[in-house]
Amino acid sequence: MSGASGMRWQVSQTRRVEYDLVNVEDVFDPGSEALLSMGRVRAGRRFVVVDECVYRHHGPRIHAYFAHHRIQARIVPFPGGEAGKTVERWLGLLRELDDFPIHRRDEPVIAIGGGALTDVVGFVASSYRRGVPHIKVPTTLMGYVDASVGIKAGVNFNDRKNRLGSFEPPRRVLLDRRLLATLEPRHLRNGLCEIVKLAVIKDAELFGLLERHGATGLRAAFQDAHGGDILDRAIDGMLEELAPNLFEDELARKVDFGHTFSYGLETRFEDRLLHGEAVLLDILVSTAIARHRGLLAVGHAARILGLVGRLGIAPALELLDVELMWQSLQDRVEHRNGHQRVPLPAAIGECVFVDDIARAEIAASIDTLKQWTRP
Amino acid sequence: MSGASGMRWQVSQTRRVEYDLVNVEDVFDPGSEALLSMGRVRAGRRFVVVDECVYRHHGPRIHAYFAHHRIQARIVPFPGGEAGKTVERWLGLLRELDDFPIHRRDEPVIAIGGGALTDVVGFVASSYRRGVPHIKVPTTLMGYVDASVGIKAGVNFNDRKNRLGSFEPPRRVLLDRRLLATLEPRHLRNGLCEIVKLAVIKDAELFGLLERHGATGLRAAFQDAHGGDILDRAIDGMLEELAPNLFEDELARKVDFGHTFSYGLETRFEDRLLHGEAVLLDILVSTAIARHRGLLAVGHAARILGLVGRLGIAPALELLDVELMWQSLQDRVEHRNGHQRVPLPAAIGECVFVDDIARAEIAASIDTLKQWTRP
Ligand SMILES: NC(=O)c1ccc[n+]([C@@H]2O[C@H](COP(=O)([O-])OP(=O)(O)OC[C@H]3O[C@@H](n4cnc5c(N)ncnc54)[C@H](O)[C@@H]3O)[C@@H](O)[C@H]2O)c1
Ligand SMILES: NC(=O)c1ccc[n+]([C@@H]2O[C@H](COP(=O)([O-])OP(=O)(O)OC[C@H]3O[C@@H](n4cnc5c(N)ncnc54)[C@H](O)[C@@H]3O)[C@@H](O)[C@H]2O)c1
Repeated sequence: MSGASGMRWQVSQTRRVEYDLVNVEDVFDPGSEALLSMGRVRAGRRFVVVDECVYRHHGPRIHAYFAHHRIQARIVPFPGGEAGKTVERWLGLLRELDDFPIHRRDEPVIAIGGGALTDVVGFVASSYRRGVPHIKVPTTLMGYVDASVGIKAGVNFNDRKNRLGSFEPPRRVLLDRRLLATLEPRHLRNGLCEIVKLAVIKDAELFGLLERHGATGLRAAFQDAHGGDILDRAIDGMLEELAPNLFEDELARKVDFGHTFSYGLETRFEDRLLHGEAVLLDILVSTAIARHRGLLAVGHAARILGLVGRLGIAPALELLDVELMWQSLQDRVEHRNGHQRVPLPAAIGECVFVDDIARAEIAASIDTLKQWTRP
Repeated sequence: MSGASGMRWQVSQTRRVEYDLVNVEDVFDPGSEALLSMGRVRAGRRFVVVDECVYRHHGPRIHAYFAHHRIQARIVPFPGGEAGKTVERWLGLLRELDDFPIHRRDEPVIAIGGGALTDVVGFVASSYRRGVPHIKVPTTLMGYVDASVGIKAGVNFNDRKNRLGSFEPPRRVLLDRRLLATLEPRHLRNGLCEIVKLAVIKDAELFGLLERHGATGLRAAFQDAHGGDILDRAIDGMLEELAPNLFEDELARKVDFGHTFSYGLETRFEDRLLHGEAVLLDILVSTAIARHRGLLAVGHAARILGLVGRLGIAPALELLDVELMWQSLQDRVEHRNGHQRVPLPAAIGECVFVDDIARAEIAASIDTLKQWTRP
């Protein structure tokens, strides 16, 4: 609608955003149609970007899959990790895509990899010809329960993480738990930190699941039954938070728990900290702040620390640095439009937002945390 | 909403897109609030990108405007033309923006310039932190009636025009007709081609206005009363087409009249053809094709040619090249998802879409056109 009324025109439209996440059994099985859904199959073409590690394990099957379906596929192995999330790499992919013409609407780009890969390929899809559809196949735990669930895409820029990007809904997310089987333990733990985040801030039942079955799930790379329960429940919770607020119109977001101080930490210590590891450091500092303020009962704080210990994911506290974390908070204030909006735990499964964290409080909480975790 | 049903989750949301276009009297008058609308004023900051030519004419007033309102503004002069619409220039702006922290939601980026500038700054706004708001102030006729009216943003890439970009609604568009007064005649004619496009394809009344008052409007840089009518009516028509189809869900678009062969022409002859000039070439070839097919009566074709003659915008036909135009059509087929969807005029103010233009038809139409326009 647009109504011209003399000197002023108004444009007011709604746009539908729709996608689904589907558990699939063996996504590279030629018998499965999942990878080719949401687009044309007859005489179709696909631009497929695959994480290098995944390619090492599954490359031949991926080629065989498209050959079987007679799809002309350009399959591009791509490095995992932050090394791939650069402007240069993003442009490199765009150049390759531009040399392999696809229809603008019914030949979705396919992203198979961890959070780093799906972030950059999502941004490729959103920028090419102002947007072509894409499908995500997460292959890391971080991707499975977090990066591929929402619609954020982007790359690092100007020494800042995720500084460029877009909100780009995928057409579909294919969840094949078996892909996690080859993941290194550190990367399993890394993804688990985001599940812990969700549990602490909004889901006491998930927290209980983690206390009982988290450690065995981790050892089984979540291929066990309880591991599956944990994953499903994590995705439930993540979607509950993300879906009503896809474009972050509401800036006070529970899922930002653990994502205030971590921003500066993971940027500065890119070579030492994975995203989830930085988030876990932040979770612990935030827990100490909540405890200091009397927001969180001592028993709840103890359960959080206990779970972290039991899962064997306790992080390297020596990286905590007051000035760095304070600067990170300032950047988040710009990002959250002038307010801190820091989620803090108020109990297991509950959270409050605060706007008045002081520098000294961060310092004191780091000290407390170090005391708590002294052997 | 997200409903978990066993092995599948669905996300389904709507997003509101809202913006307005407002005629303003003297946008740099310190008494006007227009430039500071849609954001915080007290202790506010603004990142302002200004076309270099506009800066030469209005730089001091722009500085004075923000100083008067005590807004901390980073005012960045930026080159007009395709030279500014590159990935490198876009990244340069993003780096400057990143060094001048603004709130994510209430300190809109301000783009003051022609279509090239608002395209690249729109893409800056859409990519920075996955999107910050922006306001557009068109300063060319092309921007006024076209580029700033819709929501397309982007840069040229890999030797292809607008290959990267996004759909990024502005928060507001400020239309100050006086800014057009300093525009060079060639650029006035350039913008006029898009108005001719609209008139031919959908608005016989606008066509009549152009026949009667187009030439004087052009000489007056549209500062005369009839010039104002033409501008208002062009924006009406443009919005009628764009607003219900902001994201181009429908790929058969009337406004793509003149935008099929022009794509290749303006890319190859970037140094010789402005966007509107390439569009006009395409309009004339498309008119000849329609005539060949018997879609368009001879009297209507004659009126189109007559208007182009009267306005003094007749283009250089020697650039027409069958192979180049055929390749351009092929690229548009990818862009329009597998079909040509070429709009052709069926009468003054009416159009049809065709999917079966042949190479030989383009060649024949170029010949016809050359015959028609032989002195
Ligand atoms: N978009 C979002 O909402 C969102 C959410 C969370 C995190 N992220 C981003 O995700 C990134 C982290 O994601 P990640 O932890 O998945 O990192 P990653 O994508 O770098 O993958 C981690 C490592 O595992 C390897 N790998 C991937 N799949 C494998 C498999 N199946 N078997 C063996 N090895 C495999 C990769 O090559 C890489 O070395 C960060 O850049 C973070 O900013 C984004
Ligand atoms: N986004 C869209 O929907 C859309 C629509 C049409 C065109 N475009 C794009 O717009 C671009 C063309 O726009 P344009 O014709 O405005 O070109 P432009 O922005 O390059 O401006 C043309 C010239 O006029 C100068 N200029 C600008 N304002 C002036 C003023 N008030 N006085 C004197 N000089 C002035 C500029 O410096 C430049 O040299 C192309 O890149 C085209 O792709 C985009």
